[in-house]
Amino acid sequence: MTTPAYYVTTSGNSTALPVGVTWDDATWILTNSFIIFTMQTGFGMLEAGAVSLKNEVNIMVKNAVDVIYGGLSYWTFGYAFSFGEDSGSNPFIGIGYFFVDSSDPNELGILFATFVFQLSFATTATTIASGMMAERTKLFSYSLFSFFNTLVYCVPAHWVWGSNGFLSELGVIDIAGSGAVHLLGAVSGLVATILLKPRIGRYDNIDDEPPIGNGTNSILGMFILWWGWLSFNCGSTFGISGGKWKLAAKAAATTLIAAMGGGFAGCTYSQIRTKGKLQIGDLVNSVLGALVGITAGCAIVKPWEALIIGIIAGMLTLGTIILLDKMKIDDPVGGFGVHGVGGVWGMLAVGLFAENDTLENMTKGQSGLFRGGGFRLLGVQLLACVCIAAWSALSTLAILLPLKYTLGIRLSKDHERLGSDYVEHGIDHHQPTGMMFIGNRVAS
Amino acid sequence: MTTPAYYVTTSGNSTALPVGVTWDDATWILTNSFIIFTMQTGFGMLEAGAVSLKNEVNIMVKNAVDVIYGGLSYWTFGYAFSFGEDSGSNPFIGIGYFFVDSSDPNELGILFATFVFQLSFATTATTIASGMMAERTKLFSYSLFSFFNTLVYCVPAHWVWGSNGFLSELGVIDIAGSGAVHLLGAVSGLVATILLKPRIGRYDNIDDEPPIGNGTNSILGMFILWWGWLSFNCGSTFGISGGKWKLAAKAAATTLIAAMGGGFAGCTYSQIRTKGKLQIGDLVNSVLGALVGITAGCAIVKPWEALIIGIIAGMLTLGTIILLDKMKIDDPVGGFGVHGVGGVWGMLAVGLFAENDTLENMTKGQSGLFRGGGFRLLGVQLLACVCIAAWSALSTLAILLPLKYTLGIRLSKDHERLGSDYVEHGIDHHQPTGMMFIGNRVAS
Amino acid sequence: MTTPAYYVTTSGNSTALPVGVTWDDATWILTNSFIIFTMQTGFGMLEAGAVSLKNEVNIMVKNAVDVIYGGLSYWTFGYAFSFGEDSGSNPFIGIGYFFVDSSDPNELGILFATFVFQLSFATTATTIASGMMAERTKLFSYSLFSFFNTLVYCVPAHWVWGSNGFLSELGVIDIAGSGAVHLLGAVSGLVATILLKPRIGRYDNIDDEPPIGNGTNSILGMFILWWGWLSFNCGSTFGISGGKWKLAAKAAATTLIAAMGGGFAGCTYSQIRTKGKLQIGDLVNSVLGALVGITAGCAIVKPWEALIIGIIAGMLTLGTIILLDKMKIDDPVGGFGVHGVGGVWGMLAVGLFAENDTLENMTKGQSGLFRGGGFRLLGVQLLACVCIAAWSALSTLAILLPLKYTLGIRLSKDHERLGSDYVEHGIDHHQPTGMMFIGNRVAS
Repeated sequence: MTTPAYYVTTSGNSTALPVGVTWDDATWILTNSFIIFTMQTGFGMLEAGAVSLKNEVNIMVKNAVDVIYGGLSYWTFGYAFSFGEDSGSNPFIGIGYFFVDSSDPNELGILFATFVFQLSFATTATTIASGMMAERTKLFSYSLFSFFNTLVYCVPAHWVWGSNGFLSELGVIDIAGSGAVHLLGAVSGLVATILLKPRIGRYDNIDDEPPIGNGTNSILGMFILWWGWLSFNCGSTFGISGGKWKLAAKAAATTLIAAMGGGFAGCTYSQIRTKGKLQIGDLVNSVLGALVGITAGCAIVKPWEALIIGIIAGMLTLGTIILLDKMKIDDPVGGFGVHGVGGVWGMLAVGLFAENDTLENMTKGQSGLFRGGGFRLLGVQLLACVCIAAWSALSTLAILLPLKYTLGIRLSKDHERLGSDYVEHGIDHHQPTGMMFIGNRVAS
Repeated sequence: MTTPAYYVTTSGNSTALPVGVTWDDATWILTNSFIIFTMQTGFGMLEAGAVSLKNEVNIMVKNAVDVIYGGLSYWTFGYAFSFGEDSGSNPFIGIGYFFVDSSDPNELGILFATFVFQLSFATTATTIASGMMAERTKLFSYSLFSFFNTLVYCVPAHWVWGSNGFLSELGVIDIAGSGAVHLLGAVSGLVATILLKPRIGRYDNIDDEPPIGNGTNSILGMFILWWGWLSFNCGSTFGISGGKWKLAAKAAATTLIAAMGGGFAGCTYSQIRTKGKLQIGDLVNSVLGALVGITAGCAIVKPWEALIIGIIAGMLTLGTIILLDKMKIDDPVGGFGVHGVGGVWGMLAVGLFAENDTLENMTKGQSGLFRGGGFRLLGVQLLACVCIAAWSALSTLAILLPLKYTLGIRLSKDHERLGSDYVEHGIDHHQPTGMMFIGNRVAS
Repeated sequence: MTTPAYYVTTSGNSTALPVGVTWDDATWILTNSFIIFTMQTGFGMLEAGAVSLKNEVNIMVKNAVDVIYGGLSYWTFGYAFSFGEDSGSNPFIGIGYFFVDSSDPNELGILFATFVFQLSFATTATTIASGMMAERTKLFSYSLFSFFNTLVYCVPAHWVWGSNGFLSELGVIDIAGSGAVHLLGAVSGLVATILLKPRIGRYDNIDDEPPIGNGTNSILGMFILWWGWLSFNCGSTFGISGGKWKLAAKAAATTLIAAMGGGFAGCTYSQIRTKGKLQIGDLVNSVLGALVGITAGCAIVKPWEALIIGIIAGMLTLGTIILLDKMKIDDPVGGFGVHGVGGVWGMLAVGLFAENDTLENMTKGQSGLFRGGGFRLLGVQLLACVCIAAWSALSTLAILLPLKYTLGIRLSKDHERLGSDYVEHGIDHHQPTGMMFIGNRVAS
C-alpha cells in the first residue's frame, strides 16, 4: 500500500473516514499544529530583521495578512481543492469540503485536525513569497495576492498529498513539503520579485553587499523557525500511534542534524569568503536552506545522510543567492536560495537517499538511487519539481499580472523611498515613540 | 449531566476525585499549560510595543510581577477560593486546597495539573489590567495590586467553573473564559485606569492619535498571543480522551477562523477610516478582540459562525477604543475594547449560536437562541456578564482605593515625564547601552 | 530498583532495550524536546539584552554556534560517551552509539527520541558558558570551544544519568540537571571568564554598576526560558505513562512556585538595595537562579519547599553576582550566580528536602535529611557537585589553554572597543539599517 504522509486524511470517501485515528494521534497533530504556527512569528522576525528599519513593521503586517487573508481563502476553497473527495475530484484537483465544516461526530475530529494542520502549511507557503516581495510592494495589492495565493498552493498539495493526486499515484515522496510548500512558495516569490523589479538603488553598486537590517531579529527569527521546523517535519507523520512515533523521533534527529550541517557549511564558507567576517545572512540562510533540504525526506534518510543533505543544501542556498544577485534579481531575504533551490535539492535527495520504510510504508515500497532503487524515484521527484514549479509560476502570474495592470503592485518611487512603515501605516521612525512624546513635549 | 469545561477537576469531593483522567489527558493539559504561559511573553511584547520607549522595560517587569506576585497569591488562596471543596464551600466561593499540595497518589496528578492550568489563566487575567494601567502606575503599588488581584479573579472562576458555582448551576457556558478571564480582567483594568486618570498630555489634542511605540514588538506580541490562544481555547476541553479531542480540534479551527474574521474586518475598517494607512493598533486589537470573542464558545459554534463572531468582535473592539478615547478614558493598549467588549460579545454569542454538544455535553443540554434554545441561555450569559463585571469593579476598587490613599498608585508628574524605566529601574534610554560604553568612553 | 530520570534510555544493553516505552511517552518526550530547544532562543535574547549594542548580534551568533558546532560533536561522540553501552563502558564513561543511528525498529524510536532530548540538554550546557564569555571572545575560537565543550558535558552526564555511572550507582538524584547541566556549564564559563580576564574598563570604577543593554530583550529572554524550563523539568520524567504524569504535573507546579519565590526575593532585595530602583538584572537572575535551584528536585519536593528553595536560590544568586564583582571576576550575564551557585544549591536541596518517591522511585529509595534520610544523600549530592565542578574546570582548561596559546581566545583591544558585531560580522550600528539606505542616499 502506498501511504503518503497525509494519506490518512483522505484515504476514504467522506462517509468512510479512516478508522484508527486515536486521540493520541490527535494530540500529536494538534500540538504540532500549534507549534507550526509559531513559524509565522519566526518568518516575521526573520524578514523584519532583513529589511531596513523603514519597512520593518510593514513586513510584520504582511505576515499577519498571510494568515488572515490566506487563511480565509484556505478555509473557503483551499482545503476543498486539496483534499476534497466529492464527485468531480480527479488527479489534478479535489472537490469538496468548501467552507470546511462538519457535524458528523465520526468525521469532525479528524477533519478539523487535518484542516488546522494543513492551514499551518498553507500559510507558510504564502509567507515565503512575502519576504521576497519586501520593501516595494503595495500592501493592499499584497493582501489580494495573499488571498488568491491559496490557489497556487492548494492544487499541487492535491497532486502530492491528495488521495488520488497524480504525483502521489506516481509514487512521489515529499513528507513535509520541500516541494509542495517550499519550492512552490519560492517560485511564486521569484515570479513576484521579477515582476516587481529590484528595489531602488539595489544594483547601483553591485559590489556593496547590503548590510543586514537587524541581525538580532534575524537570528531570533531563525531560532523560532528552527524549533518550529521540528513540529513541521515530525508532525508530518500525521500521528504518533503504531510505528509513527519512531519515524517522528527519527525525523527530529535528521532535521536537527541537517541544520547543523547546513550551518556548519554556511559559517565556514562565509568566513572564507569574507576573510573572517561571518555574514548573518549566510548563517541564517544556510541553516534554513538545510532545513528545507531535509523536509522532504526527514523520516526516511539516515542521520549521516541528513548531514550531507544539509551541507549541500546550505552551499546551494548561498551560491544561489550570489547568483541571483549577479543576475540582478532582487530577492531581499534570499528566499529563492533557501526555499527554491533548497526545495529542489530536498526532493532530489529523497530520490537518491530514501530507504524503503518498513514501519509505515511512507516510501510506498520505493528506494532511492543509492539504495538500489534505480532512477525511477529520482525521476518522479524531478518530475514533481518541474510540475510544481510550472504551476506555481503560471498561477502566480495569473494572479499578479491583473493586479499589476489595475491596482498596481509596486509602490511609487517616492513612497518606496519614504518606506512602507510611513506610507502604509503612518509610522515615522524618526519621531520619538509612543504616546508619551506628548508628555515629553509638554515637559520641555 | 451538566459539564462545564473544568468540571472534571471539581466534580467530586476530595476523597472521590474524578476517575478516568488518563495520562493522555495529562499530556494534553500540561502541554497546553506550558504553551499558555507563553502568552505572558506575548502580552509583554504587545504592551512593550504599545507604550513609549521610556516605559517599555517597566511594562515587561509588570508582566513578570503578574506571575510572581499573582502566582504566589493564586497558590496561597486563589485556587482554594475557586476550586476548594471543603466544608464551607458554597455557590459563591470555594474553600480548600490552600497552599496547593497533595501527597495522595490518587489526587496529586490531577490536582497539580489543574493548578498549573488554572494558574496560567489566573495570571492572564491580571496581565490584562497591567497594560491598561501602563505608563503612570507606581511599580510597588502595582506589585501589591497584582498580589491581591487574584481575589478579583478567583471568585467568579468559582461561579463559572466550580462544581457548585451559582452561574455554573444556572447553566452558564464559558469554555475558556471570555467572561471569567477577559471581561473580568478588562473591568478591573477599566476601574484602575479611571482611578489613575489619563496620562499627562494624552487629551491635550484629541485629534492626534498617539503613534504606536514599537510596531514590530506589538505584532510580535500579537503573534505569540495568537498561537498561545490555540492552547488556551483547545486546552479548555481539559483532556483529549473520549470525544474531547474532537472538540479540541473544532476549537482550533474556530479560534483561527474567528481571528481571521476579526483581522479582516479590522484591516478593512482601518484602511477606510485612515484612507489607506492601516493602523497597527487596529490590526492587533481586531485580531485579539476576535480571539476573545470566540473564547467562550470555541468548541460549540460552527466555523462560519466563528467568522461572524470574529468580525463583529473586531468591529466592536475598534469602536469601543474610539468611544473610550472620546470619553477621555485613557486605556493605553485598548484593553477594554479587546477584552471587555470582546468578552461580553463572546458570552452573548454563545447565547445566540451555541449548538447542543452531544459529544461531551459542554452545553449542558442547552442551545442558543438561533438554535431553537430560546432566550434562557442568552439571559444566563448576560447575567454572568453583569455579575462578573460588578464583582470585578467592586473588588478592584476594594484593592486600589486603600492603595491610592496610602502608598499612592500614580507616579508623580516629574516621574511620569521621566518615564518608568528611569524612575523605577534606573534605565536611561539616552545613554549608550550595556557595560561597554565604559570601554567606548575610554576609547574616545 | 534505582531509577534515575533517564534510566529508561539506558536500562538494558543494546539488544534488550526497555520495553514499555509507549507512543504516549514518545509524544511527551518529543514535544518537550521541541519546547526545550526554545530555550536557545531564550538564552540568546537574555544575553543579547545583557550586552552592549555593539556585541548584541555576535552573542546571538554564538548561541547558534552552540547548536551547530556543539550539536555536531554531541551527535559524533557526546551521546556515545554519555549513554553508550558497548564493551568498554564503565562507571566513568560510556562507549557506543557514535554517530547516533539505528535501523532496528525496536531500537530506533527510543534511541532517536532520547538523542533529541539529550541534545537539547547538551546545547544548554554550552550556551551557559557563552554568556559568561561575552563581549571579548573571538568567534572562531569560540566555535572550536563550542565543538569540544561537548566533552565537558557528556562525561558527567554519564556519571549521573548513565546506566552504570558511578554517581548514579551511589544514588545521586539530579532530575533535570541542576548539577549535570547548570553547575557544569557555570564552572566551564567561570574558568573561561577568568582565563579571558575582565572586559576593558569593567572595573575602572567599581561603584558604577553597568547598565543593562536592552532590558526588554532581557525580560523577553527570561520569559522564553521560564516557559521552556517547564518542559526541561517536566520532560525529565522521560515519559508520561504509569505514574510519570503525576510527577510531571508536580514538577510543573514546583518549578513555577520556585520561580515565584526567587523572583519575589530578588525584587524585594533589589528594591531595598537600590532604594526602590528594581534592577532588571536582579529580577531576571533571581528568577533564573530559582529555576536552576528547583531543577534537581522538581518532582520530589513539596510546593512550599519549592518556594523556600526558590527564595534561597534567588538570594544566593544575587549575592554571588555581587561577590564576583568585588573579586573583579567579570561575568557579564551573572551566569555563575544563576547556574553555578543555583546549581549547587539545587543539588544540596535534594539532599535536604527529597521525599522518597513511591510512584516511580526517582529517589531510589532515599530521603533527604529533613525527611529522616540522614546525611547520606546530602553527602552524595555534595560529592556530585565536587566531581562535576572539578571535571568541568579541568576539561574546560584542557580545551581553552591550547586555544589561548595558539589562535588566542580574546579579541584585541581595538577590536573589543569596536565591538564584535563590527569586527566579526561587519555590522556597523551607527549606519542606517538595511539595504534601503542606498535608496535614501539616492533620494537625498
